[in-house]
Amino acid sequence: MNMVHIAVDAMGGDHAPEEIVAGAIQGARDLNLRVSLVGDPDAIRYELSRGQTDDLQMEIIPACDVIHMDESPVNAVRSKPDASINVACRKVTEGHADGVLTMGHTGAGLIAAMSNFGCIPGVERPAAIVPLLGLRKDVYLIDAGANTEVGPKQLLQFACMGSAYAHYAGGIAHPRIGLLSNGSEASKGNKVGRDAYKLLAAAKNILFAGNVEGHTMLASDVNVVVCDGFAGNVLFKTIEGVIAAVLAQVQDILPQLPAGAVSLLQDHLENIRSINDYARIGAATLLGVQFPMFIGHGRSKALAVRNGMASAKRMITSNVVGAIRRTMEVDE
Amino acid sequence: MNMVHIAVDAMGGDHAPEEIVAGAIQGARDLNLRVSLVGDPDAIRYELSRGQTDDLQMEIIPACDVIHMDESPVNAVRSKPDASINVACRKVTEGHADGVLTMGHTGAGLIAAMSNFGCIPGVERPAAIVPLLGLRKDVYLIDAGANTEVGPKQLLQFACMGSAYAHYAGGIAHPRIGLLSNGSEASKGNKVGRDAYKLLAAAKNILFAGNVEGHTMLASDVNVVVCDGFAGNVLFKTIEGVIAAVLAQVQDILPQLPAGAVSLLQDHLENIRSINDYARIGAATLLGVQFPMFIGHGRSKALAVRNGMASAKRMITSNVVGAIRRTMEVDE
Repeated sequence: MNMVHIAVDAMGGDHAPEEIVAGAIQGARDLNLRVSLVGDPDAIRYELSRGQTDDLQMEIIPACDVIHMDESPVNAVRSKPDASINVACRKVTEGHADGVLTMGHTGAGLIAAMSNFGCIPGVERPAAIVPLLGLRKDVYLIDAGANTEVGPKQLLQFACMGSAYAHYAGGIAHPRIGLLSNGSEASKGNKVGRDAYKLLAAAKNILFAGNVEGHTMLASDVNVVVCDGFAGNVLFKTIEGVIAAVLAQVQDILPQLPAGAVSLLQDHLENIRSINDYARIGAATLLGVQFPMFIGHGRSKALAVRNGMASAKRMITSNVVGAIRRTMEVDE
Repeated sequence: MNMVHIAVDAMGGDHAPEEIVAGAIQGARDLNLRVSLVGDPDAIRYELSRGQTDDLQMEIIPACDVIHMDESPVNAVRSKPDASINVACRKVTEGHADGVLTMGHTGAGLIAAMSNFGCIPGVERPAAIVPLLGLRKDVYLIDAGANTEVGPKQLLQFACMGSAYAHYAGGIAHPRIGLLSNGSEASKGNKVGRDAYKLLAAAKNILFAGNVEGHTMLASDVNVVVCDGFAGNVLFKTIEGVIAAVLAQVQDILPQLPAGAVSLLQDHLENIRSINDYARIGAATLLGVQFPMFIGHGRSKALAVRNGMASAKRMITSNVVGAIRRTMEVDE
C-alpha cells in the first residue's frame, strides 16, 4: 500500500499557519504520512523553513483564499472556490490525496465536504464522530456537532455509520449502540428520539442496547452514543468543562500534602488531564461523505494537528468510507 | 410567620416509605418545619415509630393509592385521584400545607402539580430548576427535565422564572442569564434556540448574557442557564457521571502515596463528592405552577429528603411563586 496522503488546510484555525504546519511536520515524521499543505505558499514555506523537513514527503499546494470564522459557511464555501478548504477537498476528489484535515471553520468544513465530496448514497446528512476520551475506553459519540436539527431516520443513519466506524476504525468486534435520552425507558426522550428508538430497535444491522443517560453512558457497556448534534456538542463540551473543574477542586489539596506526595499527585492529575485532553484526538471524523474529512477545534495547536493526522490515518487505512457505503446499501 | 408546612409524598420513590419518613423526621427537626406525611397510614406509622418524633409537628394524611414508576403519568394522575401525590397537592390547594415534596414518578409530579395547582397566568409550561451543585457557586439550570419539547417563548419564560428564582431564593442581586448552545454566536443553536436568543436579547426584565456552552458555563459569570428539558436533563446527569469518573481516576494514585497523604486525599475526594452530590440539593423546584412543588430523584434516601425540605423551605419563605406571578404580569 502506498503511503497515506493527507491534504492539510494550512490556513484554518486560530493558530494557522504556524501551529498547523508545525503539527503537520510532526505528523508526517511520526506517522510516516505524505502531506500536502494547502494555502498561502509564502506563509507555508516560511513555517516549513523553521522545521526539519528534508527527509519528509511534504509539498505545498497554493490556495489564494481563506474562509474566516465569522463568515456564513454556505455562502463562503460557494463564493470562494479557491479557499484553502475547497482546494484541499479537490485534491482528494482528483485522487491526489486520501483525505482532508482542517482546524478551520467547522461549518465550512462540513459544507465543503458535502459540496466537494458529496454524501454516500442513502446518507441524508453527514455526522461528526468523536471518542469520549479517557473517561471510558471504546465509547464514541455521534453526532458531536454537525447537525443541530435531525429526524429519526437520520439518527438511525448515525447509528449505522457509528457502528461501522467503531468496528473498522475502533476495532470493536460487535459495537453496542445506545440512544442518548433523559431516561432509560423507550417512552423517554423527545418526539424525534422516541421515533428513532423504534427505528433503532427494528434495525437488523446494528446491536441496539436501548437508551443511555448522561451518567449511565460512562458506566455502561455501550460503544456508540447516538444523538443530535446540538445535544452531542453540549455533552462533549460539558465533559471537558467538568473535568477541568473537578481537577481544579482536587488540586486544592496540594498545599496540605507532605512534600513527597505533592509531585506524585501533580503528575497523576497532569496525566488525567492529558488522557482527557481533546488534543489527544485532534479532530472529529465526519462520516457519511464520499471521502475522509477530519475537523478539529479552531484553537488547535501542533499536537492536536499531529494527533488529528493519526485519527485520519487510522480511518483511511481501515477504509471506513467503504464500510459505510456497504452498510447504506444493505439499508436501502 | 407560622412554621412552614410541607406535605411529603411518603409513598413516592424507590426507598419509600422508610427513607422518605426517616428524611422527613430529620427535616422536621433540623429545619423546624411542620410535616404532613401522605400515604398508607399503617406503613407511615410504623416508620414514624422507629424515630423520635414526640417533639415534632408531624401528622399522617391517609392516601389509599400510589402511582408507580412504570405508569403513564397523565393517565395515572387522572385515574387515581386518591394517589398520595394528588392528596398531597390538595392539602396545599386547601390551604393546609405550603408546598409538596415528592421523590416519586417525575412525570406524575409534574402532571399532578399542573392539574391540582394550575399554571401561573401567562406561563405556558412549568419548568424544573436545579443548582449546578459544587462545581461553581450560584449557577442554576432551567429546565432540568420537565419539558422535552419547547418553543422559543417557553424558553423566554424559563429565563424569567429562573431569574426570579435566582434573585429571591438564591439571593443573587442581578442574575445573569445564559442560553445553552453549541457556540457563543447568536447564529449558533437549533431553530428554537436561535429564535429564543432574539426574544431573550429583547426582554427588558432579565439580564441576558448571550449563549453559553458546556465548558464555558462553568467558567463564566452566568447565574442561570436556560435550555429545553431534554438537553438540561442530559447535561445534569452528564455532570454527575463525569464527576464520578474523574474522581475514580484520581483515586488510582492512592496506593502510591505515602501513608500520611492517603487519608488527607481520601477526605478531600470525599468532600468533593459530597459537595457535588445531588443529595445535597435533594429536589428540583418546579417553577410556573401556582404553589410550590419539589421533585427529587426516585433513588433518594433520607438525606436527600431532608435537603429537599431545606430547598422547599427556602423557596417558600422567599415567596418565589409571588415573584413569578409579578414577572409574568409585566410580561403580558
